[in-house]
Amino acid sequence: MRRTRLDTARIRAARRVIDPVFLDTPLYRCDALEPGLGCAVSIKLETANPIRSFKGRGTELVTSRLADAGARAAVCASAGNLGQALAWSARGRGLDVTVVAPRSAPAAKLDRIRALGAGLELVDGDFDAARERAAAVARHHGIRLVEDSLDLETCEGAATIGLELVSAAPAFDAVLIALGGGAMATGVGHVLKASAPGVEVICVQPLGAPAMTRSWHSRRVVTTDSTDTIADGVASRRPIRAVLDDLLVVADDAVLVREESIRTGMRMLLDHAGLVVEPSAALGIAAILEDRDRFADRHVATIVCGGNVDMPSYHRWTGTAPTTTGR
Amino acid sequence: MRRTRLDTARIRAARRVIDPVFLDTPLYRCDALEPGLGCAVSIKLETANPIRSFKGRGTELVTSRLADAGARAAVCASAGNLGQALAWSARGRGLDVTVVAPRSAPAAKLDRIRALGAGLELVDGDFDAARERAAAVARHHGIRLVEDSLDLETCEGAATIGLELVSAAPAFDAVLIALGGGAMATGVGHVLKASAPGVEVICVQPLGAPAMTRSWHSRRVVTTDSTDTIADGVASRRPIRAVLDDLLVVADDAVLVREESIRTGMRMLLDHAGLVVEPSAALGIAAILEDRDRFADRHVATIVCGGNVDMPSYHRWTGTAPTTTGR
Repeated sequence: MRRTRLDTARIRAARRVIDPVFLDTPLYRCDALEPGLGCAVSIKLETANPIRSFKGRGTELVTSRLADAGARAAVCASAGNLGQALAWSARGRGLDVTVVAPRSAPAAKLDRIRALGAGLELVDGDFDAARERAAAVARHHGIRLVEDSLDLETCEGAATIGLELVSAAPAFDAVLIALGGGAMATGVGHVLKASAPGVEVICVQPLGAPAMTRSWHSRRVVTTDSTDTIADGVASRRPIRAVLDDLLVVADDAVLVREESIRTGMRMLLDHAGLVVEPSAALGIAAILEDRDRFADRHVATIVCGGNVDMPSYHRWTGTAPTTTGR
Repeated sequence: MRRTRLDTARIRAARRVIDPVFLDTPLYRCDALEPGLGCAVSIKLETANPIRSFKGRGTELVTSRLADAGARAAVCASAGNLGQALAWSARGRGLDVTVVAPRSAPAAKLDRIRALGAGLELVDGDFDAARERAAAVARHHGIRLVEDSLDLETCEGAATIGLELVSAAPAFDAVLIALGGGAMATGVGHVLKASAPGVEVICVQPLGAPAMTRSWHSRRVVTTDSTDTIADGVASRRPIRAVLDDLLVVADDAVLVREESIRTGMRMLLDHAGLVVEPSAALGIAAILEDRDRFADRHVATIVCGGNVDMPSYHRWTGTAPTTTGR
């Protein structure tokens, strides 16, 4: 395999730094989903932890290295999950964290960032607007800017999911990975291509936020002017060149899916797997729904990468509208 | 501690027999629940596996020993979760399984039992009626009757949850355990009392199915004529003497909770932890809701023991009625 920015030995070493609460997450065949999908499906579940997403794997590395270096503060832009994760990891290490997020981010994510003790700055505009503001905050205060996907720790943390996938038996025929900035896809993809090159690595992005997928297909950075998707966790417009270069090495394909398929995937995960997931976490199921022939009778693993969702939106998207409040 | 039927060395050995998909389940502090409950809460999550309950831990032991002994078939009575687990464990070991279940059991559970290849016999009446019928089937065919809670493997399997709880740091002040037949309470309770005797072991049962709790308080078997609860997984009327004897050794308390508290607990687990649970799995949260002073500022672990629930009932109980179908 051609080289990427990642290194499997470093990824293995990362496991010793990450709080075990984020590691060795459930991985199981989900028979009940299969009649509806026409293939064998295994779930890699990243939502059963204190922050309900995989991002803690990366922020544990970031904050551990920051604390070792004597840093006192950091700032990141986030659609919500990285911010929660960074706040969680920083809390135990005495680091001050500022999260810059779009005002339109799910309230559930913003509330948790505040509850975890981080400073929260809201910006008008989208994730890429938040990235600009976070960079300005970092420059102004002379503190570390944590950049999802660009910073190797975020990719290496996500890559530990890959170690857990390749140690599973039997091997999968394909792994479906949500694609946003690319940390998870390049991290997991690197490990799969290095250790189990026969497994097809398929990245999945919403049609409404296709920048990285288009970039992968054109082999050059393609940006978009806007995004239009419920999958807030992967809605970015401006791919990072170094991440694209890695993705070109490790991904076998990158596909786009419709919003309707994402919603149907969320509903299937609720009805047949009992899982409440955010839209980004249903991208893999959406990809199967849109191309059943491709996956027929194969064994596919999909990473259910996050479960932070505003319940009113969730009920609306999945067609399960609330009738009363619970308390 | 006084002796029970269980033995910690045997429970440790059981871990080597149980499929890893059921072991080392997520255990995490769930901050988001805490403002509503007034105490620190950790979740031990038993729903992220192929059968969505903890029962696979026990049926792995049962079927492994049956297969080693050359048996070809077994029968059990089940409210639904044991039957699914037995069917799953038997499938890989070439055992024929018959499950006798109440006709009123959740369709989601019955459908999964069938899908896993077990024979399913439905009876009018409740779980205790199914027990009688299963015993008759076993006698007629000369095959093993698997009896939840009475059979040591079912308690030893559940007890492996206890090993995972005591190896966690920091220790909990109390562990809340759903109480039905008593396999989970005696199993987990045994390990806690043997290895971490300072942890309070509190069993929780619905007011509408109080037989074992009343038996524990009276120190003798008390039966009831009927049950009336949404928590189908723990709705039994006739406690087993040997199980009660063990429960008297290992439980510090047994409490009863109202249906309304169970429903509120289910809704809180959905809204603040993103977890879809069956009613039995919300008993621990219900116990906290009904006695906040008792738990105030303590660190409580609750075992989320199952997630098999009919979605229409679920939406009704949690006040999230479906408005459309998903696909």
